[in-house]
Amino acid sequence: MSSHSTDVSVLGLGAMGRALAGTLLDAGHTVTVWNRTPGRDAEVVAVGAVAAAGAGSAAAASPLVVACLLDHTSVTDTFTAAADSLRGRTVVNLTSTTPEESRDLARWAERHDVVFLDGGIMATPEMIGRPESRLLYSGAAGAFDEFRPVLERFGTSEYLGEDPGLAALWDFALLAAMYGTFAAVFHGMAMVTTAGASPDAFVPRVTEWLGAMLSSVPYHAGQVTEGHYRTEVQSLDFNKAAVDAITRASRDAGIDTAVVEVVRRLVDREVAAGNGALAFSRIYESIRRP
Amino acid sequence: MSSHSTDVSVLGLGAMGRALAGTLLDAGHTVTVWNRTPGRDAEVVAVGAVAAAGAGSAAAASPLVVACLLDHTSVTDTFTAAADSLRGRTVVNLTSTTPEESRDLARWAERHDVVFLDGGIMATPEMIGRPESRLLYSGAAGAFDEFRPVLERFGTSEYLGEDPGLAALWDFALLAAMYGTFAAVFHGMAMVTTAGASPDAFVPRVTEWLGAMLSSVPYHAGQVTEGHYRTEVQSLDFNKAAVDAITRASRDAGIDTAVVEVVRRLVDREVAAGNGALAFSRIYESIRRP
Repeated sequence: MSSHSTDVSVLGLGAMGRALAGTLLDAGHTVTVWNRTPGRDAEVVAVGAVAAAGAGSAAAASPLVVACLLDHTSVTDTFTAAADSLRGRTVVNLTSTTPEESRDLARWAERHDVVFLDGGIMATPEMIGRPESRLLYSGAAGAFDEFRPVLERFGTSEYLGEDPGLAALWDFALLAAMYGTFAAVFHGMAMVTTAGASPDAFVPRVTEWLGAMLSSVPYHAGQVTEGHYRTEVQSLDFNKAAVDAITRASRDAGIDTAVVEVVRRLVDREVAAGNGALAFSRIYESIRRP
Repeated sequence: MSSHSTDVSVLGLGAMGRALAGTLLDAGHTVTVWNRTPGRDAEVVAVGAVAAAGAGSAAAASPLVVACLLDHTSVTDTFTAAADSLRGRTVVNLTSTTPEESRDLARWAERHDVVFLDGGIMATPEMIGRPESRLLYSGAAGAFDEFRPVLERFGTSEYLGEDPGLAALWDFALLAAMYGTFAAVFHGMAMVTTAGASPDAFVPRVTEWLGAMLSSVPYHAGQVTEGHYRTEVQSLDFNKAAVDAITRASRDAGIDTAVVEVVRRLVDREVAAGNGALAFSRIYESIRRP
């Protein structure tokens, strides 16, 4: 079983790579690091990391290699350069790659006799190693089991399945929800500041309101599962009136209307299809099957 | 001071109007009701409401008149028809009207010697009268003070200021945040269901994740207030890579990309303006001053 005695190599020392390496060092692991652009390793070397001269020598130093690079191309380039050293080892890819890109990396790994686990990090660099940090994994189940004690150093770790694209898919699904939510919060904030309110004044109201509204997500998911979208109150026709009015009010306030217009178009598409009497959650279908 | 002895007239008996009238009846008020389309009053008359033959006679029955109609046009039509009876009374408009429309109604009220208070309901009909129901008011401060005990029947009531458009502006700002959040949640849900996950499986992860992310809203608001948008980690360049990848992954999954593309365009606009090294919250500026 792996424990604090497992040596780990970290490829890529951006803000996230440095946080991963630092957390492993804190936990007592021997950590070898490499970054394509030189000079990024000073911070972690100062606290005990071993600097490797190249990706290949970094990979050769440990049975477990964690890659946290810029994008799919940089992962492919790095893996190709280090292919001989990676043979027989386990690679955990924590780079933000799409599900298809992660599956592509898994195929590369299989061809080169490398055990491949893909991961998605649901945390910012400063959260790594703290209780609120979460990571999702998919790919080689055996590798997850073997190295789980190491992976848990980064945050709560969950295995989603053998399809190596699953972690990225869930990661991106949650990030999409987050980015859309932030854009919507900024839209609301922009509305109230046009009347002289401070951004800070919007904070407690919008967080309390959205927190309360999140409690209706299980209800909406149930409607999606049932698939009939019947409702007694506040149908899409009702929501159309509201979203149209919010769009007008946003225009009157002189702010960009794109955030509400994307909702308006989804609602309009369903109303135009004759679904005005159905529930708001019916817009899921317009997203799912465009 | 008003109390349970204040008579109230409710104009409009959609789902929300019926909930308002029912809550007042439960609290012991004498409630007179009217709806343009006949037959909507049976439910509340059965539990004690007095049916009025017209908007004018309904308005004449009580010192406090609550309007919860379809839209601005229906409010204007109803107020005009009942103008003589409304003179000297207080009207609380809980219809979803835009800030400009609410200001227009306030001007009409001033010309016709009617005291005008505008309100926004942050609740669904079934929440009315429950602790989680919240209402925002603006316009005549004296009317809010005088009738606050009645208004508190509907939910926690807050007065935002003399500008009669403020309640609608805040109402719509919070609704915009809600609609955008729901669309983003449905987007994420659509992504994971393409890999066979159930909508229900997405619920606990997305609600926990968004709940955690909402805790960063004060930080973002602080950046907006400071206005320099400096960041050490995860700049707009970083977010651009992530949002571009999420857009590709959404396209690969065969779902509609509009929800993430609205974020992508906001990020791209800031990056194109040379702000790639600044924080994500800088997209607020693209929304606020398009």
